[in-house]
Amino acid sequence: MTDVDCCVIGGGFAGLTAALRLEQAGRSVALLEARDRLGGRTFTEVRTDGCWIDRGGAWIGPGQDRIRALMAEFGVGSYRQYTDGEAMMVVDGEQYRYTGTIPWTMSPWAAINLGAGFAELAYLCKSIPLEAPWDARKAEKWDRITVAQWLTRIRSKTAHDLLETAIAGSYTSAASEVSMLFALYQMASGGGPNFMFSVRGGAQDSRPVGGMGAIYGAMADQVGDSIHLSHPVHGIEQDESGVTVHAGASTLRAPRAIVAVPLAVAGQIRYEPMLPVDRSLLHQRVPSGSIIKTSVVYDEPFWRYDGLSGQSAAPGSPATVTIDACTDTARPGVLCVITEGPTARRIGRLDATERRTAIVRELVARFGNRAGSPVDYVEQDWSAERYSGGGMLSHLPTGVLTGFGRALREPCGRIHWAGTESSAVMCGWVDGAVRSGERAASEVLRHELAAV
Amino acid sequence: MTDVDCCVIGGGFAGLTAALRLEQAGRSVALLEARDRLGGRTFTEVRTDGCWIDRGGAWIGPGQDRIRALMAEFGVGSYRQYTDGEAMMVVDGEQYRYTGTIPWTMSPWAAINLGAGFAELAYLCKSIPLEAPWDARKAEKWDRITVAQWLTRIRSKTAHDLLETAIAGSYTSAASEVSMLFALYQMASGGGPNFMFSVRGGAQDSRPVGGMGAIYGAMADQVGDSIHLSHPVHGIEQDESGVTVHAGASTLRAPRAIVAVPLAVAGQIRYEPMLPVDRSLLHQRVPSGSIIKTSVVYDEPFWRYDGLSGQSAAPGSPATVTIDACTDTARPGVLCVITEGPTARRIGRLDATERRTAIVRELVARFGNRAGSPVDYVEQDWSAERYSGGGMLSHLPTGVLTGFGRALREPCGRIHWAGTESSAVMCGWVDGAVRSGERAASEVLRHELAAV
Repeated sequence: MTDVDCCVIGGGFAGLTAALRLEQAGRSVALLEARDRLGGRTFTEVRTDGCWIDRGGAWIGPGQDRIRALMAEFGVGSYRQYTDGEAMMVVDGEQYRYTGTIPWTMSPWAAINLGAGFAELAYLCKSIPLEAPWDARKAEKWDRITVAQWLTRIRSKTAHDLLETAIAGSYTSAASEVSMLFALYQMASGGGPNFMFSVRGGAQDSRPVGGMGAIYGAMADQVGDSIHLSHPVHGIEQDESGVTVHAGASTLRAPRAIVAVPLAVAGQIRYEPMLPVDRSLLHQRVPSGSIIKTSVVYDEPFWRYDGLSGQSAAPGSPATVTIDACTDTARPGVLCVITEGPTARRIGRLDATERRTAIVRELVARFGNRAGSPVDYVEQDWSAERYSGGGMLSHLPTGVLTGFGRALREPCGRIHWAGTESSAVMCGWVDGAVRSGERAASEVLRHELAAV
Repeated sequence: MTDVDCCVIGGGFAGLTAALRLEQAGRSVALLEARDRLGGRTFTEVRTDGCWIDRGGAWIGPGQDRIRALMAEFGVGSYRQYTDGEAMMVVDGEQYRYTGTIPWTMSPWAAINLGAGFAELAYLCKSIPLEAPWDARKAEKWDRITVAQWLTRIRSKTAHDLLETAIAGSYTSAASEVSMLFALYQMASGGGPNFMFSVRGGAQDSRPVGGMGAIYGAMADQVGDSIHLSHPVHGIEQDESGVTVHAGASTLRAPRAIVAVPLAVAGQIRYEPMLPVDRSLLHQRVPSGSIIKTSVVYDEPFWRYDGLSGQSAAPGSPATVTIDACTDTARPGVLCVITEGPTARRIGRLDATERRTAIVRELVARFGNRAGSPVDYVEQDWSAERYSGGGMLSHLPTGVLTGFGRALREPCGRIHWAGTESSAVMCGWVDGAVRSGERAASEVLRHELAAV
């Protein structure tokens, strides 16, 4: 490969955005992607009937201005997530239909507890300075407590289990694994728990027409020949004048590199010389979670005719969360089933047929017999994605944000860091990935100026 | 390299023991070690005057029968850690001399708090079944709490800080990073907190004559030509008949492999096919800590003449803990300074001269002016050891032991796991490493029998 101005490692939204912005600034780029596809933790499959399925990250919401800017740039439209009709909550085998965010119909006691929990989260989020969450007034206190420990204050068992499902589900790991400070920071980076957990007006508000692939595909078309698929990077050497990047038998030389892969995956690259201790140890401390995203395709979205939105939640069930995942034409009917954390690992051990049987059984119980006859069934287990290291969002365990947080985006010599986990705004969302790519690109450009 | 019966990856105590036991059972072995030395997280330097310095793990204690068995096998003797005279505690700039484990002279209130803390730890440790700590009656409760959170019950600030230094120091990471269940399990695996923190009769009771290197050197002599230094393994492929191990340009074929490296380092190897999800994700969840071990050499152990044992503790100081590290001849005088966790990372950022100045200043304050004129100064920063991934003991964050603990020693097809963190007895000590190597070797032999 020929020398370039910057080598970008990772072809998800962070890396593609960095490459795009650098090329738009007139720089030459090589983007090395380990897989044979782009998109990273997003992955859009377009079927022969034109229907698209987002097998990974799928939504955009208000305030996510940088992904919106990309969509405007490439003429990708959006449509609202379907929310008409009632959502469903399943607790102890009982189904409760409701509208809005809080399932009041279930039990006033549970609903009050749930509301109080959300309110406290919203209040606490306000105390977190996004650029430096380790400086929050009670940073130490919240960073020695897990989300599971915080949840013990919720007295109603039903509310506790629902909140646990909601929060831990967001991090795709058990609530006992996640630092409360990190959870507060991550929620705050999107504007708070209302944004995070809401569909309408929240993080699940809309979807791009054509799926996420319409956006990353358009970026890829523009970045074009600079992209090298199936090039897993295994080593990065730095010296006084630049970096040498090793990917299999290929070698690339550039003044600077942007590493735009999840932290657990960045830790598998060999850096020479070794990275500063804080960054080295950070790579051991930001695990990925587990998520199985199953798209169940029907002729039509029959649940809509029964007054259901398709949204359901059932803590502990193999089909923990469901949501309507139709395209903007609403044909065919696509129901997305999301299974996260320990439950994902549990059903991941079943064979594919058993898993499908378990999930379809749940869908029939919730949406009736028509749910039993899908025309297609697409399963994506992100734990088995070597180059995501798991899915979706990485989480920080206790003590890591206060102890190592400063290393999340601090460049190490000629190596710059991108990826949604390095973004202070919309950390964990696709929009955060875009922001991180733009920040890393501007860091590289700023260093060029300083060098002149 | 020629085919062997078993490929062992890692030349610390776990890997060397596995290789030794397999060869003693008549099997052919290749041991691949990434570094140009053996010993792993132990590392004995023998000086020209015959004095040895243990730059890593150094002690043995009662109950550590498997390392004792190795010593008997190779005729390595032991001598007691020097404990005559008084120990010293430094709190808020004040020095307190004391004897025994609890510094009663300091403040009765602090001492009572400290004693009560130890007593509770001892009580809790009894509830942990070593072979399956995830089955402890309150496993979930303790695994959602950090050591830092548990410590908030200690009312005396002095006692709190000392206990924090003692416990977090043991895991070489901040107390906020460590799961309380893991800490209880790890202490219980040695017999409880009294064993862990005691010198006489505890984990710091004795040292091998010649240092740890006398043991691993003797093992290496016997394993001999099977050892290949400077062979970092980057890939392990499994198929129906065996494993193919890749180390640089070398390739080795064997029916089975034993991976005997710290978990964070095991995660940097590429496994084909991917490991089961629980093991893959475990590799992202067991970080190493930070420790700088400094051996300060004097003509003679002058502190002994002042009635001091050389043992001191000063929470937050660059010289957090000191201990007499003389050989059995007591000449020259060696004082070992141990700095761990956040403090180690803080002083690790200083340049070497600043760090030495800071440490020697502390020694002078504690042991007098003679401490200011060392004849030699040997520093070992384990955070910079690429193939330890940090030091010394890895810790499990919250939620990991209950969620992923079963994967710690469960073989993955033809790959077996060793390393002290995989041992249910003496987990975290050199003796645990020896036990894990013997267990892994016997797993391999048992599979051979099953295959006949």
